[in-house]
Parts: sequence; structure tokens; C-alpha cells
Amino acid sequence: MKISILRLGHRLPRDERITTHVALVARAFGASEIIYTGQHDGSLESSVSRLAKEWGGEFSIKYEKNYEKIINEYKKNGFVIVHLTMYGLPLPEIGSRLKADCSGLLIIVGGEQVPKEVYEIADFNIAITSQPHSEVAALAVFLDHVTNSEPLKRSFNDQFKGKIRIEPSERGKKIIKN
Amino acid sequence: MKISILRLGHRLPRDERITTHVALVARAFGASEIIYTGQHDGSLESSVSRLAKEWGGEFSIKYEKNYEKIINEYKKNGFVIVHLTMYGLPLPEIGSRLKADCSGLLIIVGGEQVPKEVYEIADFNIAITSQPHSEVAALAVFLDHVTNSEPLKRSFNDQFKGKIRIEPSERGKKIIKN
Repeated sequence: MKISILRLGHRLPRDERITTHVALVARAFGASEIIYTGQHDGSLESSVSRLAKEWGGEFSIKYEKNYEKIINEYKKNGFVIVHLTMYGLPLPEIGSRLKADCSGLLIIVGGEQVPKEVYEIADFNIAITSQPHSEVAALAVFLDHVTNSEPLKRSFNDQFKGKIRIEPSERGKKIIKN
Repeated sequence: MKISILRLGHRLPRDERITTHVALVARAFGASEIIYTGQHDGSLESSVSRLAKEWGGEFSIKYEKNYEKIINEYKKNGFVIVHLTMYGLPLPEIGSRLKADCSGLLIIVGGEQVPKEVYEIADFNIAITSQPHSEVAALAVFLDHVTNSEPLKRSFNDQFKGKIRIEPSERGKKIIKN
């Protein structure tokens, strides 16, 4: 199943680090791309791309002005559209309604002021707790659940085959450079 | 079990939002406090405290210069010390070694350049994936695991009893103000 992230309303300089974290979480937990709207940010794109190149795996980042275009395109291609929002239904209540047999998942992660249309167009508005916290955290916990925590395993990490990788250790740091 | 977070090396203005997200994730996922080191940040403290007051529950934030003092104090009080780091052992490999019968958990979340001593003093250095991503995400996924995803449930949310709360809904936003 292909996993794509749509990050809405990137603002400069306010969201620089948050959107970077969203992108890196997406990559670490098995998504294959992030598309972002709002302000174009070349420095975000190059830092995420550089990291992805060094640490391996397939991950891309791109900018798109019109979020509706993306949602409609992915919907047409059989993707289930999930919008992560504290206002949505608790994840445990969605359960099996999130079909595992879809071509893919497009996961929408908002900034401030998500347009009302997003709540309408999404197949699921899902809350990762109904408390205010962080889109970075919501995305990570959601991806951890839909992937059955596979990305937490050593075997998943081995698949990245990066120029840099970490050899897990009980104490200290082991970094392997190929 | 009491859950406390120790956030190391807060830097201004760079970490303003990230540390705020760390604090809000801690609160939403059932921790009772966050202690932070690095630069003192009154605005961080007041925004987290204000949010906690409005949204309910018991959560506090405080500054401490000396991280070792905190770790030693909590260790003496029977807390298990967990350091979240991409260099650590994968969470699934820790399994039952994380005793559920401890008085509490002190979870250390680093910034850049975590001192070597932290890796030594921690009972567990745990990786939430061995890929670079986000301390916000690592904390959320770890807390989701140690709490068996209780914070994702409607019933957990109801316990906050805040002046503001969200009534989960399939579409749109329902905010209840008491």
C-alpha cells in the first residue's frame, strides 16, 4: 500500500522545523512522498531530499499550490483520504472501516485553519486524541498504527540501505557509513 | 504509573515550537509533567500552563538547569529512566524488560548533542525507528505504546474535564465550552 502525505498551509518561517519533522516522520514510518501547500520552501525541499538521499529509501517531496487538485487526483486513483484532526473520530473507533485493500492512503495533515472542504472531502476525519498537541505526533502515531509498528523493527530499518545507517546499541552511538 | 518527561537543551528561538509540541504531546498522552533544561523560556511555560488550565487534567511544566540532578532524584524515587534516541535499541526488542511495576517513568527527550552521560545513566536507550525524524514523534509513539493506546480513546479524553473540550465528530468541528 502506497502512503502519501499532504501537508497543508506551510508558512515561513513559522513552520520550517515542524514541516521538516512531518516530512521526516513520513519517511521514517514508510510513506513514499510528501506534498505540501502554502508557501513554497526550497530550503525545506533540499534538506529533506538530501537527508533521504543519505539515509536511503525512496522518498520525495514536492510543492503544490492547489490542495483540491491533489485530493481529487488521489481519490480518482483509488486512494483512501484520511484527514488527521483533533476534531475527528478517535482512531480506535474507526477500526476496520479503514480498508486495507485500497491502492493507497493520502494522509492530510493540517496547519492552522484547515478549510472546511477538507473535512467534507476526506473519507475519514481521524483524531489522534481529542486534545491539542502536534501534527508531527498525530502523523507518527497514525502511521505506527496503520503499519502495525513495522517501522519500529530492525528489519524495516535495514530496508533503507542508506549511505549512512545506525547500528542499534544499548549504550552510545554506532553510525555506519558505506 | 506516573510519567514525567525531561526535555534536554531547549534553545531559543530555535526550539520554541518543537518543545511546545513535546510538552503538549506529553500532556495529551497522559504524562503529568515536563521538566526542561537549556535556556529558560517563560513564554513556553505560560503557554503550556494556560493550555493545560483550559483543556483540563493535571499537567505542569518547570525549568531545571541541571539535568543530572533530576535524573538522580527520579532514579532514587524508583522511576525507570528511558532515553529516547535513534541510536538506541528498537522498541520491539525491549519488550517486557520495561517493567510495568516501577513507580514511574522518566522519559528523556534530547535536543541536539545529548551528553554521553545520558546514554550511560539511562536504564534504557530506546529507538523509535533508527532513522532521523522528530523527538515529538518519538515521544508520542513511545507513550502510545506504554499506555496501550488508552489516550486515543474517548473515555481517556473525558477524564481531562477541561473548560474546553472536543466532542468527536465524523465531519466538522464540535467544541464544547463549559
